[in-house]
Amino acid sequence: MKLFFSPTSPYVRKVMITAHEVGLADKIEMLGSAAHPVNRDRTIIAQNPLGQVPTLIADDGTVIADSRVICAYLNDLAKGSVFPADPKARLQAEIDQALGDGILGAALILRYEVAVRPEALRWPDWISGQWDKIFTTLAHFEAHAPEGRADIGAITLASALSYLDLRFPEYDWRRTHPKLAAWYAGFEKQPSMVATVLKG
Amino acid sequence: MKLFFSPTSPYVRKVMITAHEVGLADKIEMLGSAAHPVNRDRTIIAQNPLGQVPTLIADDGTVIADSRVICAYLNDLAKGSVFPADPKARLQAEIDQALGDGILGAALILRYEVAVRPEALRWPDWISGQWDKIFTTLAHFEAHAPEGRADIGAITLASALSYLDLRFPEYDWRRTHPKLAAWYAGFEKQPSMVATVLKG
Repeated sequence: MKLFFSPTSPYVRKVMITAHEVGLADKIEMLGSAAHPVNRDRTIIAQNPLGQVPTLIADDGTVIADSRVICAYLNDLAKGSVFPADPKARLQAEIDQALGDGILGAALILRYEVAVRPEALRWPDWISGQWDKIFTTLAHFEAHAPEGRADIGAITLASALSYLDLRFPEYDWRRTHPKLAAWYAGFEKQPSMVATVLKG
Repeated sequence: MKLFFSPTSPYVRKVMITAHEVGLADKIEMLGSAAHPVNRDRTIIAQNPLGQVPTLIADDGTVIADSRVICAYLNDLAKGSVFPADPKARLQAEIDQALGDGILGAALILRYEVAVRPEALRWPDWISGQWDKIFTTLAHFEAHAPEGRADIGAITLASALSYLDLRFPEYDWRRTHPKLAAWYAGFEKQPSMVATVLKG
């Protein structure tokens, strides 16, 4: 398999944590890319019209977007348990993936606003709204940390927290979310996390 | 079940088309909402920290976000075929859902940029990048329309096209995508589409 990747993409990290968890990481050849929302990468677009990372090219040539679909594909391929077989556990994992992706989406929008958009065109209310989305969702996970789980919900949440650390190190989410911080401190010691650290 | 909804949300439309297709539409009670990325709706947030529509509250109280998870949940509940049982067909449906959601996401970002953000703070390069994402993905579907399918991929694409018609009626995508236009003209006659028309 081949994967268009970026070393700073938290969505790529979701895929690679999953690949490590299900034992497929060494089957994936990494393809460099220059995915960007304004200067779009035509090499990716030739395969995936969204022009985004992660994009997986399966061994039979099927091009798979996006991170959710890729993670489910890898799990199915390896008969893994990142998506639990039990329907109730799987639903919870997928809900938590959606919430984690919500944090990630808001954090990426913030990154585009404060690091890509010209400074004179930034909108404080928009920035506040995205931060508020992150705050309310982190508060949810502070009350409902995915203890003892390594499913796609936990993986997505960990990717989101690592992205906050990478891009917004001045935001000390650990201080205001001690239970989530304790959960993450344990989770990030897993080999799948150690092998996939984001590099800014 | 209860659903936080908005009559203009294409993600809500995905859910309601799915509900009609699997025969569960009359089991869903609609809850009005004022979801907004800046002035966030605290009533939704009390249930779903993302504060978004669609948010489904299942009969056992489980709160389900987001549209992908809700659609899969409804399909499982009704043992429907919106997510095909055949693994290859299901993968294709999920890839096309991701591509359709990509169009939707770009269209929503455009909507926020040109209708929510103060005019003086709009960024033409950002607008061009989002439109380009829509163009490349529509070009893909012009070559690969989901003929004869009513799965989640086709449903998502139809929701995206209907949203372009609602918010950007000046963009005549049918002229430049005649095969996609022919497919959509057939698809939108289905009862599940007729029952869920977006209202701006």
